[in-house]
Amino acid sequence: MRAQSAYILRAPPARRKLNQNECPLDLPPPLKRAILDAVAAAPWQRYPEFVPGELLERLAAHYRWRPDGILAGNGSNELIQATLSVTLGAGDAVVAPSPTFSLYRLLTGVLGGRYIGVPLGADFEYDVDRLISNVVRERARVIVLNSPNNPTGSALPAGAVERILRDTEALVVCDEAYAEFGGPSAIPLLARSSRLVVLRTFSKAMGLAGLRFGVALAHPEVTAELAKGKLPYNVNLVTLAAAAAALREGPLFAERTRQIVATRDRFVARLATLSGITVYPTAANFVLFRCRTVPAREVFRRLYDEYGILVRDVSNAGELTECLRISIGTDDDMDADLAAMAEIFGRPNCPA
Amino acid sequence: MRAQSAYILRAPPARRKLNQNECPLDLPPPLKRAILDAVAAAPWQRYPEFVPGELLERLAAHYRWRPDGILAGNGSNELIQATLSVTLGAGDAVVAPSPTFSLYRLLTGVLGGRYIGVPLGADFEYDVDRLISNVVRERARVIVLNSPNNPTGSALPAGAVERILRDTEALVVCDEAYAEFGGPSAIPLLARSSRLVVLRTFSKAMGLAGLRFGVALAHPEVTAELAKGKLPYNVNLVTLAAAAAALREGPLFAERTRQIVATRDRFVARLATLSGITVYPTAANFVLFRCRTVPAREVFRRLYDEYGILVRDVSNAGELTECLRISIGTDDDMDADLAAMAEIFGRPNCPA
Repeated sequence: MRAQSAYILRAPPARRKLNQNECPLDLPPPLKRAILDAVAAAPWQRYPEFVPGELLERLAAHYRWRPDGILAGNGSNELIQATLSVTLGAGDAVVAPSPTFSLYRLLTGVLGGRYIGVPLGADFEYDVDRLISNVVRERARVIVLNSPNNPTGSALPAGAVERILRDTEALVVCDEAYAEFGGPSAIPLLARSSRLVVLRTFSKAMGLAGLRFGVALAHPEVTAELAKGKLPYNVNLVTLAAAAAALREGPLFAERTRQIVATRDRFVARLATLSGITVYPTAANFVLFRCRTVPAREVFRRLYDEYGILVRDVSNAGELTECLRISIGTDDDMDADLAAMAEIFGRPNCPA
Repeated sequence: MRAQSAYILRAPPARRKLNQNECPLDLPPPLKRAILDAVAAAPWQRYPEFVPGELLERLAAHYRWRPDGILAGNGSNELIQATLSVTLGAGDAVVAPSPTFSLYRLLTGVLGGRYIGVPLGADFEYDVDRLISNVVRERARVIVLNSPNNPTGSALPAGAVERILRDTEALVVCDEAYAEFGGPSAIPLLARSSRLVVLRTFSKAMGLAGLRFGVALAHPEVTAELAKGKLPYNVNLVTLAAAAAALREGPLFAERTRQIVATRDRFVARLATLSGITVYPTAANFVLFRCRTVPAREVFRRLYDEYGILVRDVSNAGELTECLRISIGTDDDMDADLAAMAEIFGRPNCPA
């Protein structure tokens, strides 16, 4: 274990916090108050429900899947951990795209598995053939597909999950943390395969990162296995109440998601007009770009020091040299970022 | 994994809920309200602090240990899991007393370890020599000591942890979930050994089972390793706020703990006068007893059906044949239970 590193993020406070792909807006205060009033009336000294039956029913309606095929988690991270912990034996291979969310590699290492990162294409697009050939060659137990993929924004092409299920024998784990913002979902395939796990989170489009809630969806026989890797009473009473309340607010989150997607598309189009930057296609609530004329570390520092904008510096990883990731905030946040970036990279048509 | 079973507890609602060793009292309403007001003002769409620095300082003062030697968890269960996941390789042995809290065996199995339960004595007292000889013989990587032990109530004898540290090479994990109610704590030994992990929880004496909070205390080099098995953002913002608030209420919890211990001691003394029952010594907020003249399942059922008292039926495990476990509730709860038990077992000196 000593060779393994921990997931660490130290970030200073910022006026415009665009480093964790959070929702820019909090829940409306009356909704928070209603949740907290329900929580105030609950007995805090009692364990939460062992199986939150009513919440699972609501989740089933929301995701159009069956309640006995849903597991609730303390964030979807916990369900990734549960899935890998009941699946991997020592030396078993896990295939994932590279780059992707770093937790898959960390957890695979902790569990004694063998992690195989398969490069994405030149524009970070998914290379499904290459993923399949790696799964087959390594006899991988699991393939993890983050779609849209963090930190690149790439979505799986339509039909990719079907092909991977058909051409491999691996358990296919689709981490759809950002799926509300774009790309296809594998949920409709759940009825056809018991080798598929779909993870969803309330931390992004539902704006509840501070409360930690995620779900795993799979065939009931699979969720029964995954439950063995999950701790009892893993979701606390406040989060159970907040998740139930959020599920009643479908139109609110749908409207917010439409707004974020519109802000993103406008931002991407304008960012791409700046010289010295390569912007990669994104289906998520964040954008990856490569700094070609100013070092990424300098861009990161100036955005923070001079403009109060905190983005994510991902530039130290191999394929991501000189790349930064920025979350989609409010229109005001993104306008401020565009103005700052124009200053840093020099305005097109307006040389100093 | 298919051979492994999940931790499952299905329990009906009850007027007197004495099955999960919870605190009988909720937090005072003004304290809950103060916590919820702080939570209402926080941004729910933001991830919690990566390392809750101020809370770790307070925990360090509370447990008289150092903040860089403390990890916060989503209940202490998560920290047991983290400890075992970074420690165990395939086939590595884990030694624990038998019977004990079932989660140790479950997690060891999920992680591919080899679980060795070492019988307690005739009155479920700890047999330290036997534990040591098993650790040595099996070259165990880890020994888990739940003290006071669930479900028996047995506390480790003074000096036991020192001896185990001296005579074995295992990592010693002391799960002190019930330590506020009695028995020695291993916390003072942390300064002398980097092979010791002490787990504490806010679910029992602190009455916050519904919010899920626990800590691991160890040498900073050890907590740095354990952190690799723990997920980022594992404790949500509400629980962080509640834990901080609870730590300011030391005198309240000390007084509640004194009350529960007094209620327990009075209850145990009176329960022991009933014929047909063997009561085992306890240092915890629960009592284990063996039913000798009426089957435990019948006692369990009658307590629930006729008196609205829900206890824990542990009678299906080998050493615990005919045993039930009852949590210490209010004086009123325990008086009701004593009256019910007297009816079920027949009053001493008052034959029908």
